[in-house]
Amino acid sequence: MIAEIISIGNEILRGEITDTNASYLAAQLPLLGVELHWVTQVGDDQSRLVDAFRRAIGRSDLVLATGGLGPTVDDLTREALAETLGEELHSDPALEAGLRDLFAKWGRPMPSHNLKQAAVIPSAQPIPNHRGTAPGWWVEKGGKIAIVMPGPPGEMQTMWQEEIVPRLAKMQCGGVILCRTLKTFGVTEAAVDEMVAPVISRSAAEIGIYAKPDGIYLQVVAKGAGQSEAEEKIRETEASLREIIGEHIWGVDDDTLAGVIGKLLAERGKTLASMESYTGGALAASLSDAHESSRCYKGGFVVGSEAVGTVLDVPGGSEDLHGPSDGEMIAWAMARAARQRLVADIGVGVHGSQGDQSRGAVVFIAVTDGQRERSRQTTWPPLRRDTKHWVAVAAMFELRRLLLDVG
Amino acid sequence: MIAEIISIGNEILRGEITDTNASYLAAQLPLLGVELHWVTQVGDDQSRLVDAFRRAIGRSDLVLATGGLGPTVDDLTREALAETLGEELHSDPALEAGLRDLFAKWGRPMPSHNLKQAAVIPSAQPIPNHRGTAPGWWVEKGGKIAIVMPGPPGEMQTMWQEEIVPRLAKMQCGGVILCRTLKTFGVTEAAVDEMVAPVISRSAAEIGIYAKPDGIYLQVVAKGAGQSEAEEKIRETEASLREIIGEHIWGVDDDTLAGVIGKLLAERGKTLASMESYTGGALAASLSDAHESSRCYKGGFVVGSEAVGTVLDVPGGSEDLHGPSDGEMIAWAMARAARQRLVADIGVGVHGSQGDQSRGAVVFIAVTDGQRERSRQTTWPPLRRDTKHWVAVAAMFELRRLLLDVG
Repeated sequence: MIAEIISIGNEILRGEITDTNASYLAAQLPLLGVELHWVTQVGDDQSRLVDAFRRAIGRSDLVLATGGLGPTVDDLTREALAETLGEELHSDPALEAGLRDLFAKWGRPMPSHNLKQAAVIPSAQPIPNHRGTAPGWWVEKGGKIAIVMPGPPGEMQTMWQEEIVPRLAKMQCGGVILCRTLKTFGVTEAAVDEMVAPVISRSAAEIGIYAKPDGIYLQVVAKGAGQSEAEEKIRETEASLREIIGEHIWGVDDDTLAGVIGKLLAERGKTLASMESYTGGALAASLSDAHESSRCYKGGFVVGSEAVGTVLDVPGGSEDLHGPSDGEMIAWAMARAARQRLVADIGVGVHGSQGDQSRGAVVFIAVTDGQRERSRQTTWPPLRRDTKHWVAVAAMFELRRLLLDVG
Repeated sequence: MIAEIISIGNEILRGEITDTNASYLAAQLPLLGVELHWVTQVGDDQSRLVDAFRRAIGRSDLVLATGGLGPTVDDLTREALAETLGEELHSDPALEAGLRDLFAKWGRPMPSHNLKQAAVIPSAQPIPNHRGTAPGWWVEKGGKIAIVMPGPPGEMQTMWQEEIVPRLAKMQCGGVILCRTLKTFGVTEAAVDEMVAPVISRSAAEIGIYAKPDGIYLQVVAKGAGQSEAEEKIRETEASLREIIGEHIWGVDDDTLAGVIGKLLAERGKTLASMESYTGGALAASLSDAHESSRCYKGGFVVGSEAVGTVLDVPGGSEDLHGPSDGEMIAWAMARAARQRLVADIGVGVHGSQGDQSRGAVVFIAVTDGQRERSRQTTWPPLRRDTKHWVAVAAMFELRRLLLDVG
């Protein structure tokens, strides 16, 4: 099945927003065994929209359009698809009643122009929108499928996952398609590739490997005649992968590292404090951003490399401390100081030098719970723009290992 | 002039990267008086590329293509444009020599497949790439212009700004087009719109108003027969805007607020320290991220709301402090404590409650240099996802006001 995406909206063509709907859908389609050939971005202009729909329906089996379903006169996606297919728009009584109910629930009068969102054409089946007022359309005609979804990413993604994926999966394999993502850290993409090759060759599920900002992800996709068959395939494949690479897997699906740490802290009734130089607040920001960790995270100290001495009360400051072993000592002193000053159960310290163009950055990570202490020296290539982010991820991974008491 | 963008690469159609080149160029084109009608994303597939180029050249005056100029066999943009125009590729001796020089400078042998990047067609003029190995192409044929640029955003943007904008400006207005961005904070888009309306109506330059993550931007675009005429128009318009809204303007063009603060600190030989609860490290991360501010920023404390008492040594902790005036007192205590403990000239404190679904968040910002103290209470609508970011921006704006000693 060949697919095409049409992203609709003047704000895209003016460069005011970046079209993330297309990349979201593009990443989803391979899971359904659908091949994407084209993405077109077009403004809210009826003749250009009709042109785009006509071409897409001509050359692709599945057309996914997002945007232009709002209540204003500028929103022309329904009108354009109706013209493309030579059909007339009419108001759907059930959709109209649904819209009126929604506004009544909100305690607000429904503006008359919202009625536009109840319009359908004879070959369109409405798709419920659980997060907004604009229903989508599922249109089948002449052996082709055109699906129209709202533009706001939250509305689009919910409609896609809850309403569209199950239907497309049924069409594609006569059953269900399930996906599970295993998230790893501390191994390179090439190493993951080599380690899991034997599983890939014999697994009943498909396995993809992707480099992401918080490590390498393994994406497991399984098809089955029913839910249980697909679930069983996912379970088996996940078990095989965990046997090989389990120690590097820190989470699944929507997990974040900060969220995982927050959950582990909460389960153990422990609190956490941090002190960081190199990462300049990136670690604190990650830990306090996650809902799960913000309750157990008591806070942290962000210090410039030269101010470490002032904060730690090390006589003479950090200038007296040189070389790798000193860097490790400082990171430990930072972890202990964070823990003691904020009266937390666990402390984490991050200390390092910015490095320069020839040498990379050398960063020390230390974690302590008062009894056990772990530390790790990490080196990072020069001139990487996102090294702070990676070091913060590495520090959270060390914290997770301390909490799980793994080597 | 009607333009069309073609973004090329399998990694876009697999959803592995989001196409930010298209939105960058889309935002640039209005400055040149060029209207964008279409964006097409297509994979590295010769027949689909030819299809896309043929259609674009047929319906648009200016075609901007990015990507597919790498040295590997997958990269087919040159081949596809050659086929579209019915021309033959040949190696350009000057480009080939340039590539060999580049690799010699790097002290690395040139892989033979990099020779591909020296290929041109008769109607293409090479465009220098100051940041990579792949030259661009400027093609004029049959009254249409096709411009091909490399895919990596850094390379593309440099080539666009340095090589392509001046040429397109010359074509569009027979002269030069200049742009200046004035960045404001603390006023709404609607208020800016109303305030600057009189300037817009009589200015020799065009003025656009855009909401951005660090405030409202005013974009001034001026055309002139020569550089000096355009510069004069920009200067006049900027002066008129500054008369009206100058107190809210914190920077221009590529300035960041953290960078502006860093510069002000360095000029005055002052150092800075922070203590934040509500923003959870977002303020520290911003201040330490900017190259200019990282040297003068001694560090900061990130504390959970409940740990403020522990850190500040306020007997009984923050539970004893309630109500708005207490919130302001805490923010002040935080600013003073940050300044004293990190031995800095200036301290900034941020304290607030998360708020809930009905009430918004109330956040206090305090700054002190030991003599002068300023504070500000800010309220933020409930359920905004990026409130932490906005509060960090507001805190930096207060710091700037203290440093400039403005009311």
